[in-house]
Amino acid sequence: MTGSSFGKLFKISTWGESHGNSLGCVIEGVPPNIKIDDKYIQKFLDKRKPGQSKFTTQRKEDDKVEILSGVFEGKTTGTPISLRIKNTDQKSKDYSKIKDKFRPGHADYTYQVKYGIRDFRGGGRASARETAMRVAAGAIARKILGEKVKIKGALIQLGKEKINFENWKWDEINKNDFFCPDKNSIKKWEKYLLKIRKDGSSIGAVIQITVQNVPVGLGEPVFDKVDALIAQGIMSIPAVKGVEIGKGFECAELQGEENADEIEIKKNKVNFLSNNSGGTLGGITSGQDIVVRFAVKPTSSILIEKNTINKQGKNTKIKTTGRHDPCVGIRAVPIGEAMVAIVLADLMLLNKTYK
Amino acid sequence: MTGSSFGKLFKISTWGESHGNSLGCVIEGVPPNIKIDDKYIQKFLDKRKPGQSKFTTQRKEDDKVEILSGVFEGKTTGTPISLRIKNTDQKSKDYSKIKDKFRPGHADYTYQVKYGIRDFRGGGRASARETAMRVAAGAIARKILGEKVKIKGALIQLGKEKINFENWKWDEINKNDFFCPDKNSIKKWEKYLLKIRKDGSSIGAVIQITVQNVPVGLGEPVFDKVDALIAQGIMSIPAVKGVEIGKGFECAELQGEENADEIEIKKNKVNFLSNNSGGTLGGITSGQDIVVRFAVKPTSSILIEKNTINKQGKNTKIKTTGRHDPCVGIRAVPIGEAMVAIVLADLMLLNKTYK
Amino acid sequence: MTGSSFGKLFKISTWGESHGNSLGCVIEGVPPNIKIDDKYIQKFLDKRKPGQSKFTTQRKEDDKVEILSGVFEGKTTGTPISLRIKNTDQKSKDYSKIKDKFRPGHADYTYQVKYGIRDFRGGGRASARETAMRVAAGAIARKILGEKVKIKGALIQLGKEKINFENWKWDEINKNDFFCPDKNSIKKWEKYLLKIRKDGSSIGAVIQITVQNVPVGLGEPVFDKVDALIAQGIMSIPAVKGVEIGKGFECAELQGEENADEIEIKKNKVNFLSNNSGGTLGGITSGQDIVVRFAVKPTSSILIEKNTINKQGKNTKIKTTGRHDPCVGIRAVPIGEAMVAIVLADLMLLNKTYK
Amino acid sequence: MTGSSFGKLFKISTWGESHGNSLGCVIEGVPPNIKIDDKYIQKFLDKRKPGQSKFTTQRKEDDKVEILSGVFEGKTTGTPISLRIKNTDQKSKDYSKIKDKFRPGHADYTYQVKYGIRDFRGGGRASARETAMRVAAGAIARKILGEKVKIKGALIQLGKEKINFENWKWDEINKNDFFCPDKNSIKKWEKYLLKIRKDGSSIGAVIQITVQNVPVGLGEPVFDKVDALIAQGIMSIPAVKGVEIGKGFECAELQGEENADEIEIKKNKVNFLSNNSGGTLGGITSGQDIVVRFAVKPTSSILIEKNTINKQGKNTKIKTTGRHDPCVGIRAVPIGEAMVAIVLADLMLLNKTYK
Repeated sequence: MTGSSFGKLFKISTWGESHGNSLGCVIEGVPPNIKIDDKYIQKFLDKRKPGQSKFTTQRKEDDKVEILSGVFEGKTTGTPISLRIKNTDQKSKDYSKIKDKFRPGHADYTYQVKYGIRDFRGGGRASARETAMRVAAGAIARKILGEKVKIKGALIQLGKEKINFENWKWDEINKNDFFCPDKNSIKKWEKYLLKIRKDGSSIGAVIQITVQNVPVGLGEPVFDKVDALIAQGIMSIPAVKGVEIGKGFECAELQGEENADEIEIKKNKVNFLSNNSGGTLGGITSGQDIVVRFAVKPTSSILIEKNTINKQGKNTKIKTTGRHDPCVGIRAVPIGEAMVAIVLADLMLLNKTYK
Repeated sequence: MTGSSFGKLFKISTWGESHGNSLGCVIEGVPPNIKIDDKYIQKFLDKRKPGQSKFTTQRKEDDKVEILSGVFEGKTTGTPISLRIKNTDQKSKDYSKIKDKFRPGHADYTYQVKYGIRDFRGGGRASARETAMRVAAGAIARKILGEKVKIKGALIQLGKEKINFENWKWDEINKNDFFCPDKNSIKKWEKYLLKIRKDGSSIGAVIQITVQNVPVGLGEPVFDKVDALIAQGIMSIPAVKGVEIGKGFECAELQGEENADEIEIKKNKVNFLSNNSGGTLGGITSGQDIVVRFAVKPTSSILIEKNTINKQGKNTKIKTTGRHDPCVGIRAVPIGEAMVAIVLADLMLLNKTYK
Repeated sequence: MTGSSFGKLFKISTWGESHGNSLGCVIEGVPPNIKIDDKYIQKFLDKRKPGQSKFTTQRKEDDKVEILSGVFEGKTTGTPISLRIKNTDQKSKDYSKIKDKFRPGHADYTYQVKYGIRDFRGGGRASARETAMRVAAGAIARKILGEKVKIKGALIQLGKEKINFENWKWDEINKNDFFCPDKNSIKKWEKYLLKIRKDGSSIGAVIQITVQNVPVGLGEPVFDKVDALIAQGIMSIPAVKGVEIGKGFECAELQGEENADEIEIKKNKVNFLSNNSGGTLGGITSGQDIVVRFAVKPTSSILIEKNTINKQGKNTKIKTTGRHDPCVGIRAVPIGEAMVAIVLADLMLLNKTYK
Repeated sequence: MTGSSFGKLFKISTWGESHGNSLGCVIEGVPPNIKIDDKYIQKFLDKRKPGQSKFTTQRKEDDKVEILSGVFEGKTTGTPISLRIKNTDQKSKDYSKIKDKFRPGHADYTYQVKYGIRDFRGGGRASARETAMRVAAGAIARKILGEKVKIKGALIQLGKEKINFENWKWDEINKNDFFCPDKNSIKKWEKYLLKIRKDGSSIGAVIQITVQNVPVGLGEPVFDKVDALIAQGIMSIPAVKGVEIGKGFECAELQGEENADEIEIKKNKVNFLSNNSGGTLGGITSGQDIVVRFAVKPTSSILIEKNTINKQGKNTKIKTTGRHDPCVGIRAVPIGEAMVAIVLADLMLLNKTYK
């Protein structure tokens, strides 16, 4: 498995299984003399932590992060930063019943064929638990981007229920259990999701990440365009099935004169008259807000019985009775923010090499 | 610029500007003893070549590829393969009028800010002309995948006009100017696109790439999942604004029991009862067809006058009078196929290291 | 700092400071289904461990390794293996006296200028303590190489005292405190090194690594030749100042007909009549023994007072009173073995992609 | 073959066989706005060019370099620079006689086993002709380092004949056919080498590369130390068998107090009292001169008959009658300079990311 690293200069290498000893991440490339401590990172982890509300899994993990290297007297030294979270609330027994069965929609089957062995407890390395480390690394990435750059995620669609964009309020997002920017959607969503949960089912969602105050010039053509790396980073999050930038799929329906964002000088500054591009031109940030949306599928771990096969190649049935999120899309909000931060931090370091 | 390389083992490095001396690509990692010659690669380039029909740019480029290294007596030797296409029909003068203006929706502005210099002729490195080399590399990638693996692209939406999926015919695709699988759409599309062209405008599109007979096990978790790398590869194609796998954005509306693909043993083979996942589970190919869709924006080079600014920071107007595609989505079909082939070839080589 | 990773497919990322919380390593690319446990790795760490004899530093570290991920029920799963050693015997106070002084021959000065900050305790990241993780990773690399491939290090020169190659006995090496293959040198060396130690001084050494039963074909021309990667790996070990392969520097004095190793078929096998090349032709292993030698400088931490400057830019004097090895070359033997194992394991995985 | 690329930010990818259509190199990561033209690069290529004196091969290659991309109106644009040299004087017939025989000391045997196919004409990819592109890339690397940094190679030993270091004159180096800094050695060397040539034999050599005015801070611990990367770069040059930094192998014989370079403040500047370290401390440049030495073996292509085997596994004899250098060490001087320039340019770009 060679895909556990991401980034060229701001490079993260994550490790750890859902029900193993612990999870961790090594981060190379962090410049020296940046103030960082456990508490700062913890704040971001707590946003993603399971067991926070009735709408997320009831697995109780402290997700307490330790910094094991790279920080000296409260500041980064330029050496690799090693982070670790010990696993605590592992109910591995939940999984012994299904250890020989391949859960539909899960990585069970493909890991088994690829590796000929798998840590079946809680999905092992394929578990979304891996994303805790993306969030931790994302917290450090934000330090490189600086305080001016704001990365803000929001849930804009829960199942068939979309928000009304006209009701968007930035400060509403952190006031509800859904990271929803539209106050009017909350009640409806609560009722909707409780029903799904009661039915032992799950539901998909759409998340939007907006980045404000992005410097012009981030992105490395041809293959490492800012949008291409964001696409990779976002699509690599478990359960993500689609990603779009700016107008995204809607672009297909537009004519050239509707789509291209006109430019003007306004008060001595470059000003774009629209933002259909979502902040990127030719794969390089234009200084406009980066706008990314991504779709998350409903988790496949549900209480409803489904057909599947087992390791022995026999037909069988399965019901997944562990503790699961009825909508993984909610916790995907801080994860998506983190991945965008990680991509931008790397591109910001790369961009320094042109001066 | 460090982003002109792609892949870990099957590694391509492209170079060249739209109106420079030539374009090229170096491909490392091709196993030895594979039969390859100019003609074989040319066949794929001809699919993408400009000037093929009234629906693509009238720039006439032979796009004649030369193999400069890595092939000896008709076979690969395991050493880097160097490919080159000489530029011939460069009407650089078309661009001198707009060399100081930033075309809306183009990379002109961002390249200028990032690099402080740019080859303004035809978009230089940011031109879609760069994609010729993706197609050439894709042809070689297919050789690694073997003949059984079929990668087939099709245009499924032109502007607001979508195909009827029930009319899908694989052998229709190469019979029309649009790579359209639905015979009933052709006439409508012709009329629609000619109108757009006449208006000096352009239109977006959606392309679908299907890969048949994929071996199980391709993809490297966590960050190099097959879907994540496809997302990067596809989103790096100029003008692409969205990418989705399997059900894609539609997943957001589904419940768990609707979405997860059930599995059964049928005639001693693993069989999935549906393919919402689009051929990937946990980022590893499942053996089902890979299904990718992506949206292409309308080209920003149009004859309709728009507001913009110039290098000197003054407001001005612009009309782009060069030769351009009214729908770049059409030529994006072979390019998308090539990028998927490149990703899969790399993952296939990586997968050999587990044995 | 981006240089803490090594390897392309068998990729190690090390982290940790000499007197920090702990040291660790993440290893990507290990194939699944290999038997590995703590004890196996510990055996190799114990060879390098400080405080083993009167000829190494008296710092007492258990160097007890923990496997935190990637191994399930005693076997590798193909996912990243995370290893950790907790630091225990850190006498950080030893260093507070010299925290503002730059020790001659140490990285103190260069780290300070490069990063503007440094963990001065025991050399921080620049300490040779980092090499524990190379040894741990090397143990896993050997598993990939298989039991037939034997990597054997030996000290062949201590200061001015060279062994007599005619007395070479493989099984002598592990019977003495020097990893010396020449029984006749032991007594002499003991006396010599005790004198140096008593004087508060230190001494250099030369190590030879021999690899037996190497498969033909490892090495990736042009830049990743087996000898080039070994040179990088070995030269990256703290205190190493020279590396040579086969006849090495002696080649300069030879004529072509003396140097080139003749080939013959003998008992149906390819047989070389000499091994001046040290097992590599064109950067690819030939199947002959790989023979590498490297020179280690005397440690710069000595009790003899020297001139230096401090952080404030003033002239001063320094004596390093911590616990140090009188000859770091001794412990460099298992480290050198490990680096060669790491390079070969990576090349062995890469070589699989040609089949 | 994945090893044809070198560097992380200043990244070169070379391609081409000795007797193929042409040789080339793609260079990514060159900052924009640097003045470069063919003539500038040609100057360096001419130093390495064959057929320059009676002491190098009589193959006549113009080695005329073309810039195919990345330079616009005389300046770099930040996009990949593609360089090409067409092969002209290929006497491929010289090789048809030995196409089935493995030349002792050559890569013939190992390429055949590794790849199962090889371009036997002139060594194909394994030929030292590949180094032309290192020299071209090195010329561009020097532009990144700036004019103050001086990289100067010299031949310090030809066979058994060493120079007298006390006679070292920098401006002598380019006045003779050997790049020899000691005027007194020239006559002796001429006679010595003509004799070797007449005998159809060849001889080894030692080269020293000195870099003056190096900024402090280049090098990335742990594995990408400046000395480690130089070791890789130098050892990857065909025929190199050993590399050392500073005192090198001599260090083994020194005691700590003799070896560590004392530091002082002198006229408000940091001053080292000696340079045993060769300009690197902890793998980071100290600002002192970088001093590297490397040994080159005698070329294995000689007129003296030797035993070998053929592709069919039979014993046979071989004499290599092509045109060859009696001492490849001479032309290794500009190649060694280039590799050091390439390493330093990459590290200089990497170092910018700390600011």
